Amino acid sequence: MEVTLISHTLEPESVVAAAARLSTSSVSATQLKERLSPQRVQRLLDNLIAAGHLSPFEHASFTFAIDGISRVTSHQLVRHRLASYTQQSQRYVSLGQLEYVTPHSIARRSDWEARYREAIEGVHRLYCDMMEAGIPGEDARYILPNAVETRLVMTMNARELMHAASLRLCLRAQWEIVQLFENIKIEVRKVAPRIGDELKPKCFHMGYCDEAECCGLMPKLDGKGAVR
Amino acid sequence: MEVTLISHTLEPESVVAAAARLSTSSVSATQLKERLSPQRVQRLLDNLIAAGHLSPFEHASFTFAIDGISRVTSHQLVRHRLASYTQQSQRYVSLGQLEYVTPHSIARRSDWEARYREAIEGVHRLYCDMMEAGIPGEDARYILPNAVETRLVMTMNARELMHAASLRLCLRAQWEIVQLFENIKIEVRKVAPRIGDELKPKCFHMGYCDEAECCGLMPKLDGKGAVR
Amino acid sequence: MEVTLISHTLEPESVVAAAARLSTSSVSATQLKERLSPQRVQRLLDNLIAAGHLSPFEHASFTFAIDGISRVTSHQLVRHRLASYTQQSQRYVSLGQLEYVTPHSIARRSDWEARYREAIEGVHRLYCDMMEAGIPGEDARYILPNAVETRLVMTMNARELMHAASLRLCLRAQWEIVQLFENIKIEVRKVAPRIGDELKPKCFHMGYCDEAECCGLMPKLDGKGAVR
Amino acid sequence: MEVTLISHTLEPESVVAAAARLSTSSVSATQLKERLSPQRVQRLLDNLIAAGHLSPFEHASFTFAIDGISRVTSHQLVRHRLASYTQQSQRYVSLGQLEYVTPHSIARRSDWEARYREAIEGVHRLYCDMMEAGIPGEDARYILPNAVETRLVMTMNARELMHAASLRLCLRAQWEIVQLFENIKIEVRKVAPRIGDELKPKCFHMGYCDEAECCGLMPKLDGKGAVR
Repeated sequence: MEVTLISHTLEPESVVAAAARLSTSSVSATQLKERLSPQRVQRLLDNLIAAGHLSPFEHASFTFAIDGISRVTSHQLVRHRLASYTQQSQRYVSLGQLEYVTPHSIARRSDWEARYREAIEGVHRLYCDMMEAGIPGEDARYILPNAVETRLVMTMNARELMHAASLRLCLRAQWEIVQLFENIKIEVRKVAPRIGDELKPKCFHMGYCDEAECCGLMPKLDGKGAVR
Repeated sequence: MEVTLISHTLEPESVVAAAARLSTSSVSATQLKERLSPQRVQRLLDNLIAAGHLSPFEHASFTFAIDGISRVTSHQLVRHRLASYTQQSQRYVSLGQLEYVTPHSIARRSDWEARYREAIEGVHRLYCDMMEAGIPGEDARYILPNAVETRLVMTMNARELMHAASLRLCLRAQWEIVQLFENIKIEVRKVAPRIGDELKPKCFHMGYCDEAECCGLMPKLDGKGAVR
Repeated sequence: MEVTLISHTLEPESVVAAAARLSTSSVSATQLKERLSPQRVQRLLDNLIAAGHLSPFEHASFTFAIDGISRVTSHQLVRHRLASYTQQSQRYVSLGQLEYVTPHSIARRSDWEARYREAIEGVHRLYCDMMEAGIPGEDARYILPNAVETRLVMTMNARELMHAASLRLCLRAQWEIVQLFENIKIEVRKVAPRIGDELKPKCFHMGYCDEAECCGLMPKLDGKGAVR
Repeated sequence: MEVTLISHTLEPESVVAAAARLSTSSVSATQLKERLSPQRVQRLLDNLIAAGHLSPFEHASFTFAIDGISRVTSHQLVRHRLASYTQQSQRYVSLGQLEYVTPHSIARRSDWEARYREAIEGVHRLYCDMMEAGIPGEDARYILPNAVETRLVMTMNARELMHAASLRLCLRAQWEIVQLFENIKIEVRKVAPRIGDELKPKCFHMGYCDEAECCGLMPKLDGKGAVR
């Protein structure tokens, strides 16, 4: 898996701070262009987060090239609807060389890894044979496994990144999408450290866990709303 | 594939007509509850469509149970972001009995159909073996093919249905999603015939084709915007 | 202010329950059409709410005719982007008879109420004079006050209603929009009592208050996440 | 009115081109970071526009400070739901100095301009008196006219900008919002000339006019879809 930030809103944290400033004080557009000190920006962002006023974070967005995730994970990822995706088509791009993901629970056991690999290679040979026999690529790909790697470009704003990360960095989430969001977090931190820091599991925001099966990192609430 | 309308906005076409009425005339909320004649409803809908004022169609929504589409198609479907989806999880629902889709280009050639079926059965045996050996279901499913059937509940409003159908009923779209939207259209027509009629390829709305490869049903535009 | 539910998803709570059922069990589309007992529906909804799995609530939507809110409030309302609105145009509907909202803080003091009323009447006369003099309605309305009543049709799904109500039923929200959401809640309860009950201020969901200025109904969190 | 681009996606047109490249060819994330020649970028953008494949344009977004538009216009603007807004609150920011918009149809006739100005000044005095008498700002503002200026920060992606401009640059749109989008277009062209060029009335995209009352710039379609 390779996650690369290929573009983003210029000075993302300053833009969020400028929007925050506008909402409650009498500043003009010209004044909004003036640079705020890094300290001022941090204080404005801290205040927004503490108050749960997250809408100004929508003004900063981040564009990632995501390479080498399985279609298991891309199918989950695109369920986040407040984002933009351009995905490499299995319909137009033929897969002469098959790249695929092997889960750790399989990779660490050499016998199962061998059966898994052979099964995928067998299926890939059938795929290539069907293509050669004139079966359209859009039909031949029905045989390809979920494990096959895909690529996409994704743009998500900071508010939605915080929301998605709160679900996908939960240790109860599926391991590959956890890993994807860990990589996203690393990339965001390079250009927007304060925003990057806010990409964390929901229990870190709430102070407790609301999952049916809890990993134990944070306490669960009892029925009356008290932390137990 | 089985597509069933399991619920929808009560009197969907009357609701759209009521909203249309409000936007340009001085009617009260109480008056909006009054029944309009079917003729009046049709005329109001016709006017909206002719003028391209589609936003009132958002007030009518339709909920479908969709059963037996491949994950090829569900992955495409959920790319329509202005809709709500609840999909059966491959993570929690184990697949003792594997149901899968066979494209017609494969099904009609018995030799390829046999190789396709055997490949899927082989992969399914490996999936079951891995599950028995204690590999988590969320990892074992990486080996499953795109062809595996999935189920979902989808809610989409009439405006977005018209938009999605304009793309997905194009004969250049992938055959399984064309079939899905043909079924959706049949279901919508039962309770909202005028809206159902508007579920049609984009070329029927535009009067010409803008695809690179045209099926020939409608003329293409030349560079100057004239129909050729 | 008059809020009327003019349509909604048929059997809204059953539809949410059907979607919830699908996500974690192996039911077919045909089975989803079967009626669940009211007890079963309630249990499924309770589980979703307890687990914070709110996406199935998107399958139920509600359409309201809203009559007699000020443009102060309509401007706030349409900021909720996950909903559909058709608003009566001040551009096309001329306002021969001016209806307007008087806030209680003004209405209860007869001297201020008189000045407020006279000011609005004066402005309305100018509006009518400008219209007669041939100034376009879309320009004449610039003089009209925020207090002028407007009408709209709004469709919102149950998940977004729960979110919007969590903000707008907070006693710190603006009084007119609080009143609007109280009316919405009354209407929803008539056809979907369990969903209606969930339309409540965010502090009832969280068990604490995160507003800078707290009304005292719920305790505030201290810096370490403990309720104080 | 003052419209200032305060931030935007870095190299917006290259990002759109990179996404376009990915969708139909086999390039890796690392390759996507490589700079494309300006000619190549233009060709990719031209192809997307010609084919109506607009989704890659969502990867580029633009953030504007908008200063001095009336609340007539801000109310219309925020109806575009696929965008992010932070608006200066009339609730928290008190309006000691009242700035307001005068439509040209009023401004050019000195008698009407005088009555308009006096009416607004009268209303503003009442607003200030009510504030001094302890009536809350959130209530006093009910008396303020639509003409009062507001400020906001808006972020919109290139696809939605193209859509909004197609409606709002139509000469049938309200003059103030036409002017707003003309200013937006000027700002976008400075950093993304090809995208800026695509901000134009819908009739320029379609080659004909579908408005009930046509300005005459483009021909209307007759009933059979032919240009007349």
